[in-house]
Amino acid sequence: MNNLSAPQGIEPASAVADPAAPTYSDILAAAARIAPHAHATPVMRSRVIDEAAGCELHFKCENLQRGGAFKFRGACNAVFSLSDEEVARGIVTQSSGNHGGAIALAARLRGGRATVVAPHNTPKVKLAAIRAYGADIVHCEPEQSARDAATAQVLARTGGVLVHPFNDPRVIAGQGTATLELLASAPQLDTVIAPVSGGGLLSGTAIAAHGHDPSIAVYGAEPEGARDAHDSLLEGRRITGRKTDTVCDGLRAELGTLTFPILRSHLRDICLVDDRQVIAAMRLIWERMKLVVEPSGAVPLAVVLAYPALFAGRRVGLIVSGGNVDLDLAAQWFAPQTL
Amino acid sequence: MNNLSAPQGIEPASAVADPAAPTYSDILAAAARIAPHAHATPVMRSRVIDEAAGCELHFKCENLQRGGAFKFRGACNAVFSLSDEEVARGIVTQSSGNHGGAIALAARLRGGRATVVAPHNTPKVKLAAIRAYGADIVHCEPEQSARDAATAQVLARTGGVLVHPFNDPRVIAGQGTATLELLASAPQLDTVIAPVSGGGLLSGTAIAAHGHDPSIAVYGAEPEGARDAHDSLLEGRRITGRKTDTVCDGLRAELGTLTFPILRSHLRDICLVDDRQVIAAMRLIWERMKLVVEPSGAVPLAVVLAYPALFAGRRVGLIVSGGNVDLDLAAQWFAPQTL
Repeated sequence: MNNLSAPQGIEPASAVADPAAPTYSDILAAAARIAPHAHATPVMRSRVIDEAAGCELHFKCENLQRGGAFKFRGACNAVFSLSDEEVARGIVTQSSGNHGGAIALAARLRGGRATVVAPHNTPKVKLAAIRAYGADIVHCEPEQSARDAATAQVLARTGGVLVHPFNDPRVIAGQGTATLELLASAPQLDTVIAPVSGGGLLSGTAIAAHGHDPSIAVYGAEPEGARDAHDSLLEGRRITGRKTDTVCDGLRAELGTLTFPILRSHLRDICLVDDRQVIAAMRLIWERMKLVVEPSGAVPLAVVLAYPALFAGRRVGLIVSGGNVDLDLAAQWFAPQTL
Repeated sequence: MNNLSAPQGIEPASAVADPAAPTYSDILAAAARIAPHAHATPVMRSRVIDEAAGCELHFKCENLQRGGAFKFRGACNAVFSLSDEEVARGIVTQSSGNHGGAIALAARLRGGRATVVAPHNTPKVKLAAIRAYGADIVHCEPEQSARDAATAQVLARTGGVLVHPFNDPRVIAGQGTATLELLASAPQLDTVIAPVSGGGLLSGTAIAAHGHDPSIAVYGAEPEGARDAHDSLLEGRRITGRKTDTVCDGLRAELGTLTFPILRSHLRDICLVDDRQVIAAMRLIWERMKLVVEPSGAVPLAVVLAYPALFAGRRVGLIVSGGNVDLDLAAQWFAPQTL
């Protein structure tokens, strides 16, 4: 069961817009730019899970996106925003997996080369996808400081162009296109929940949702074992340098300088769940919706089930962020004694 | 690897139509009857699997059907074809799982009661679904003779109405509606493959496909460990009474007196695959398409991958029959040493 205190809400930040943050118009432009390459993923429902949750849930299935995650949206928008000269210099990024695969695929579609800096604990299936799309991999330690150092080294060595996984307005705008599609399919939603790691997806989600309807409540969903975003928003300053401990391999990054102020000005709250709640929610999606989602992608449903009073009777959109799972690991997750 | 001989093709049977067999018109009528209750499931594609298979694959996702399998189509058509008086007597069936859940759900939607005779090796998740939809369960041994004996006892005791899982023209017509939808979505298919157990799905598939275009090649897909349909068509007589040994819990029944002649007059062939090939195909669908399918539902893809020369360059529709999986069992399947 959940041992966390109930969400308290976030102190409203000053509403001064960061000039570097993407706008709703940028998200509309991104949607047009990536349309020839990205899938318009389905929005799925489940009567059984609605009944269990006590609200109306609309699952935006980014596990069915190309590359198996929403990351292709931002990567594609960024890579197709580059000049030919920039593409020729080579594209460099850092990633715990899905963004790396997405950049590799987008670079191949654009006719360029990519190098991905990946922590050594990146799941095998995600490394295999990066290689399959033809990108080079440079391994590093999982902490953010080690990722940044290795990325700087690669940029210096290759003269390439950085496409950061979340602290980049083109990437944020691309991620927001998932919510554009979600709200085109279900325009009456009053709540949208997305997972938070570096904050690129959640920032794009919030800007898109509030461009559609400023009264939509936007929540972040974060694992207890990587709660830097929750604590950063509570304390009003960006917390960095913590170790993480969560089954959600896609949610171990820290908020960026660009995403932190966007989230402060847009979010209703960030809700925490523990790994056991994440695995239970993931199992429910596999069993009842017949969809393979990765742990990170099940965190929004875990939040809905953990805080029923917050969402009772509401019309909730959930960003199911990805479905790239090592099935050998999944065997461990589902054995009841291991968590 | 595959140790089976290549498919030889089936001797054409006499083309005299069985008057009890459903017609294409019956399938069109079934589609209208079940439309208020059943999902029109999506047809999905995968570039990666197309490349691996060397042909164009269209996956009809009946794992996303209500109850998690195509079975709801036939059950719904049969139950909504009954008179009120028949419904009041109670509906009885026998099932290794998915048909039982489908009858239980259809009976509940119709406002009636159902009793399901289920072999004791029925997966827990399927028994749970039958109970969740409010039906009674009577357990029996897995052999067909034991299922028939237990069903006869229940019918005698309750005075109920039998809806057989496959040897029933209303059920066959309902199952055929999946192929109607498949061909509405992909009218240019030249090949359709469905799994075969009792033959209800495959019979409906063949009648629907040949009603759409008589030149479509229709294949059955069957596990080596339950190859009675393959051998029955090869020998020209219905083989019964064998033990089965396969991971495909949904494909252990034998052809019926009604389905055998339908398959004889419609099929190009029945292709065999072993359990290792089934699990590999299932894993491919989970990993690349992010869809949870049960072993039985992956047998058509296993056939395509096992006999590439048969399907090279063709436009192939695959009926992904169901997605009801005990995830605790799945952990065993994916551990490489267990098969």
